[in-house]
Amino acid sequence: MRNVRLEVSYDGSRFFGWQRQDGFLSVQEAIEQALTSLLGEPATVHGSGRTDTGVHALRQVASFHIDTPLSDDRLRHALNAHIVHGVTIRRLETCDDNFHPRFDAVSKRYLYLTLTTRFRPPFARELVHWVNHPLDYAAMRHAADSLIGEHDFKAFSSSSSTARGTVRTIRHVRIVGRRERFALIVESSGFLYNMVRIIAGTLIDVGRGRLDSECAARALASGDREELGMTAPASGLYLLRVRYPEPCFCGSDRGPRGVPGLLQV
Amino acid sequence: MRNVRLEVSYDGSRFFGWQRQDGFLSVQEAIEQALTSLLGEPATVHGSGRTDTGVHALRQVASFHIDTPLSDDRLRHALNAHIVHGVTIRRLETCDDNFHPRFDAVSKRYLYLTLTTRFRPPFARELVHWVNHPLDYAAMRHAADSLIGEHDFKAFSSSSSTARGTVRTIRHVRIVGRRERFALIVESSGFLYNMVRIIAGTLIDVGRGRLDSECAARALASGDREELGMTAPASGLYLLRVRYPEPCFCGSDRGPRGVPGLLQV
Repeated sequence: MRNVRLEVSYDGSRFFGWQRQDGFLSVQEAIEQALTSLLGEPATVHGSGRTDTGVHALRQVASFHIDTPLSDDRLRHALNAHIVHGVTIRRLETCDDNFHPRFDAVSKRYLYLTLTTRFRPPFARELVHWVNHPLDYAAMRHAADSLIGEHDFKAFSSSSSTARGTVRTIRHVRIVGRRERFALIVESSGFLYNMVRIIAGTLIDVGRGRLDSECAARALASGDREELGMTAPASGLYLLRVRYPEPCFCGSDRGPRGVPGLLQV
Repeated sequence: MRNVRLEVSYDGSRFFGWQRQDGFLSVQEAIEQALTSLLGEPATVHGSGRTDTGVHALRQVASFHIDTPLSDDRLRHALNAHIVHGVTIRRLETCDDNFHPRFDAVSKRYLYLTLTTRFRPPFARELVHWVNHPLDYAAMRHAADSLIGEHDFKAFSSSSSTARGTVRTIRHVRIVGRRERFALIVESSGFLYNMVRIIAGTLIDVGRGRLDSECAARALASGDREELGMTAPASGLYLLRVRYPEPCFCGSDRGPRGVPGLLQV
């Protein structure tokens, strides 16, 4: 048996989230089905964390133990040939037997993509969020800056309680606005349920003048969800990458640079 | 009654081509339905030409005669609010009563988009063609150069005969290759049936070494379709713009610059 880790991209609109559930095709199950049809026996795939229905991934990390004479490169080819459309195994390597994509993760980076064209774009509705209003990026950056560092993000969560509490450390927030599109990039040691979507929705509401740019700071102090904006829809959200203490995938070729497919950030 | 012309973008994968046909939703019918629900009476929309099922448009031009007190800007807003998802009216203006989008067109420009990543991209399969092979852009450019000018393009058509003959003038061919994507741009006084898709498929076959770069010149001389490559799939094809003797849409705001949505050429 060897431990194999994957870097996986997927179109979340084609799956019922990452996690396996009876009667609905999840990304985890899609990879497990491909492995089973390849190896003739069931395998269990572990991911770095769940993503909800409609949420995409550019570099989700997953792993599984298998017993196969196939080389890493051949295994990647075979998996991509067997897997349903909407999932791509970008990189694959045999790793330390103890590696676990969830428990070993140090931080995660998410991307939220929004178009601000005056009229609804005809293309790729499932891959981006659309707001028919120009946005004030300076106000949004001001609000975003207050999120950096260790805070109690209770107000930024859709679930009332978590076992680990609601203190998290945001390491990095960036807003890239160009013409009629903007990308929000957030990196944190961990995210509460719907945290990125609430951050994105709040910043958009700040950008269009519905909320003032101090609202995020107030919500951090008060813990009050009511201070914040909408929960932005899943369509714009991408798990961008997962960081580990040791660099991963150094040996294998990088696959496509940047963002796969048509998405350009 | 006034004559109104439109600049329209659409996702061709959501429609059965441009032209109205019983029992299948076409782009033409989608616009006519929006007009009818808006004005309460039927209207007929004329386009600059047909596009096949699965073929997209960034700036298709169309026109219709209507009797409405709505200003151009309000009419555009109302149409976009009434139209099904997948079509966007980017610009709209009242024009000369005699303007006809098809008969007045001087030339058309098409775009063919291809990704050449090693593995199938998980996103937007209906919006781009994918070839899992690197391409030799120099060889493709050599083949493409032989198409420029007035030639008999008989070999580059899927239909055996046309009323107008098979001589056309290609004014412009450009191949933009960057990393793992390439865009082919072709402008001509007119196109035969499937002509751009045969050009794209042939250039891709040249790029991957299946055909030599003189094949296009030989096919122009011989008229033999067998000299050429595959007919590339509709998914990668976009009607980019239509030219007229007089400039159109100078008065109205431009709408989104460049290519709408996620597509970056």
